[in-house]
Amino acid sequence: MITINENYLKLKAGYLFAEIGRRIRAFRQKNPGAKIISLGIGDVTEPLAPAVIEAMHKAVDEMSAAETFHGYDDNHIGYEFLREAIRENDFRARGVEIDIDEIFISDGAKCDTANIQEIFGPDNIVAVTDPVYPVYVDTSVIAGRTGPADKNGRYAKIVYMPCTERNNFVPEIPEERADLIYLCLPNNPTGAAASAEQLKRWVDYARRNKAVILFDAAYEAFISDADIPHSIYEIDGAKEVAIEFRSFSKTAGFTGVRCALTVVPKQLKVRTKDGGSAALNSLWNRRQCTKFNGVSYITQAGAAAVYTRDGKEQTRQIIDVYMGNARVIRDSLTRLGYKVYGGVNAPYIWMKTPNAIGSWDFFDLLLEKAHVVGTPGVGFGASGEGYLRLTAFGQPDRVREAMERFEGVAPE
Amino acid sequence: MITINENYLKLKAGYLFAEIGRRIRAFRQKNPGAKIISLGIGDVTEPLAPAVIEAMHKAVDEMSAAETFHGYDDNHIGYEFLREAIRENDFRARGVEIDIDEIFISDGAKCDTANIQEIFGPDNIVAVTDPVYPVYVDTSVIAGRTGPADKNGRYAKIVYMPCTERNNFVPEIPEERADLIYLCLPNNPTGAAASAEQLKRWVDYARRNKAVILFDAAYEAFISDADIPHSIYEIDGAKEVAIEFRSFSKTAGFTGVRCALTVVPKQLKVRTKDGGSAALNSLWNRRQCTKFNGVSYITQAGAAAVYTRDGKEQTRQIIDVYMGNARVIRDSLTRLGYKVYGGVNAPYIWMKTPNAIGSWDFFDLLLEKAHVVGTPGVGFGASGEGYLRLTAFGQPDRVREAMERFEGVAPE
Repeated sequence: MITINENYLKLKAGYLFAEIGRRIRAFRQKNPGAKIISLGIGDVTEPLAPAVIEAMHKAVDEMSAAETFHGYDDNHIGYEFLREAIRENDFRARGVEIDIDEIFISDGAKCDTANIQEIFGPDNIVAVTDPVYPVYVDTSVIAGRTGPADKNGRYAKIVYMPCTERNNFVPEIPEERADLIYLCLPNNPTGAAASAEQLKRWVDYARRNKAVILFDAAYEAFISDADIPHSIYEIDGAKEVAIEFRSFSKTAGFTGVRCALTVVPKQLKVRTKDGGSAALNSLWNRRQCTKFNGVSYITQAGAAAVYTRDGKEQTRQIIDVYMGNARVIRDSLTRLGYKVYGGVNAPYIWMKTPNAIGSWDFFDLLLEKAHVVGTPGVGFGASGEGYLRLTAFGQPDRVREAMERFEGVAPE
Repeated sequence: MITINENYLKLKAGYLFAEIGRRIRAFRQKNPGAKIISLGIGDVTEPLAPAVIEAMHKAVDEMSAAETFHGYDDNHIGYEFLREAIRENDFRARGVEIDIDEIFISDGAKCDTANIQEIFGPDNIVAVTDPVYPVYVDTSVIAGRTGPADKNGRYAKIVYMPCTERNNFVPEIPEERADLIYLCLPNNPTGAAASAEQLKRWVDYARRNKAVILFDAAYEAFISDADIPHSIYEIDGAKEVAIEFRSFSKTAGFTGVRCALTVVPKQLKVRTKDGGSAALNSLWNRRQCTKFNGVSYITQAGAAAVYTRDGKEQTRQIIDVYMGNARVIRDSLTRLGYKVYGGVNAPYIWMKTPNAIGSWDFFDLLLEKAHVVGTPGVGFGASGEGYLRLTAFGQPDRVREAMERFEGVAPE
């Protein structure tokens, strides 16, 4: 008799954004005329860069003739032309040497940060920040790495690392054992970034404790402070303990195109039960070859165009638009008396709700009074209670309009 | 201290096609002038249909303007325009009613047939045919559903269902308990297809034993016999016990574009440990929303074009080219005295090696003497020993040339 993976039953409610969608639909039904502005879900609005569009048209044309047609990407982990461009521009340009066999192209950092768990043993303790991108937690639950959730939605066996005003939203080394540590920096949802010194503490900790850091650098392109590392491999010794995830979703507007990459250094080795040692690079390669079939050639051609001279300039301009939005949000809310964080090295603004109103209550209030959608901080974890995440991915005029509407809901 | 998923260490050698690639590279190094023709890996060669190309160009253009730009596919399971077209053309046209919420778009049937295991409990017994598409087995191993492999590469705890000349390569109901049954029909690698009556026996078995059938219909478009079902849902009661997988890879030449679909009927319910019941549709939806982020808009637009009047006609022509190849292979090999199966309702020809030569020996012989690549049958399982799989996906003139070269290696 068939049985299900009962871990699914431990999952709390729906996926955060599904619940937000539900509330928006309910609001729309009652207020069919309302013109809602969403600063909630982290989706981009700017079109793809012209260099990307051009490369994709060319790739589509190649698919129309037998001589230039591309079938399976033989090695499943991405075309060399793309992995070469990544090595050169994302890593070598910052003094980091990565082998192209250490770069794995995929269809999303969400998939990769989730699927990577499959190469690890079931008994590893997962550590996450609180607040946190829900995917790290939910996939740990599904994988059976947790106990049930308590009334605050915290799962037994997961180590939560609170990120609060006190530590400037950068997690501290936990006192409990942690084997698999998710760090998203610059951070979603708080917008916080970590200095080289702070990252070094994590790398040293992982080396000392034989832990692995799952470093989600999906937002590195939004860093504006010159001294903030873009890659964890800028830290000595990180290649022995860290896997890094990157994405074209926010950097180049690929949320609807789907392309990302994961770096698994060959130095990253783990002792096996029989006393041998296994290279995580080989395990991930085996995982991807067995369960994945590569990314669309057209997508990869578009992604490679991001690294051309035109592509770099054009995507930089798009990022500037979003970071201009971030500045508008920060400045407007600060002027209105709100306390805001992030938005300098990340496209996320983490605002404190006025008068300690609960996150969902403020979400509803904002929707009701200003027809503006944010993401309730508590949706990212218990320590996110009393915060709202706003994203800088909107269209500039809409962002400005949203900020004007905020005046009506200003704290008393 | 971090540990790995030790199940990876149980996996035998590399992925079959990696080993084939290794042997071809070794041969090329010794014979740099040789013009190898591959009838080995199941990759297509015909370019995309003009209707698909046109739709993709249009979709790329839409991505270049803010007003028509597509970001995240909100529900992660595919655009309604594509799921509607699938419901109408793939199912309703054959008398099967499927709700669009039962259709999940993904980036590949390989991913889906592998990932689907995640919604099931760890103790379910997996049954596979022998020979079999290696992904079903390898992913069962990775998921911890098996013991170690024996010297024939058979894993403990997996139920193997031999498909041989005796049963015309259609698996029989096993005597052992089986909970999760992978059936690929029309079959890769044997090219066999199952009648409605044979499928009904499986559906009845699954209903009686509360098992789930994972029905891989990736090759349904190649069926030429009018009375062979294209969907398992053409069998009464199948919606209560079967998940069906389909792919655009072979049907529409999408191996390099990546698009597939999985149908999980809402009637498919499984009893939970607490005595409740869980709908697999909800579990898969949760899995996809949590660990997957949808398929490229451009890809989905291209896939939808397969269902337009032009798209249908053009993809039908492409399939006809391949099935023409299949006929050439069957006829040529038969004339040369080989025993061949398949190639009528599937793009695969399953040929018996002459004089009971081992699969890998015949692979090497064919490569050496004819510079033709096939896939060793034993790579698909112990019962595949003494067979070679040839695919019909080559370019017609190359297929004919390969057949001419076979004359030099004809059985004595």
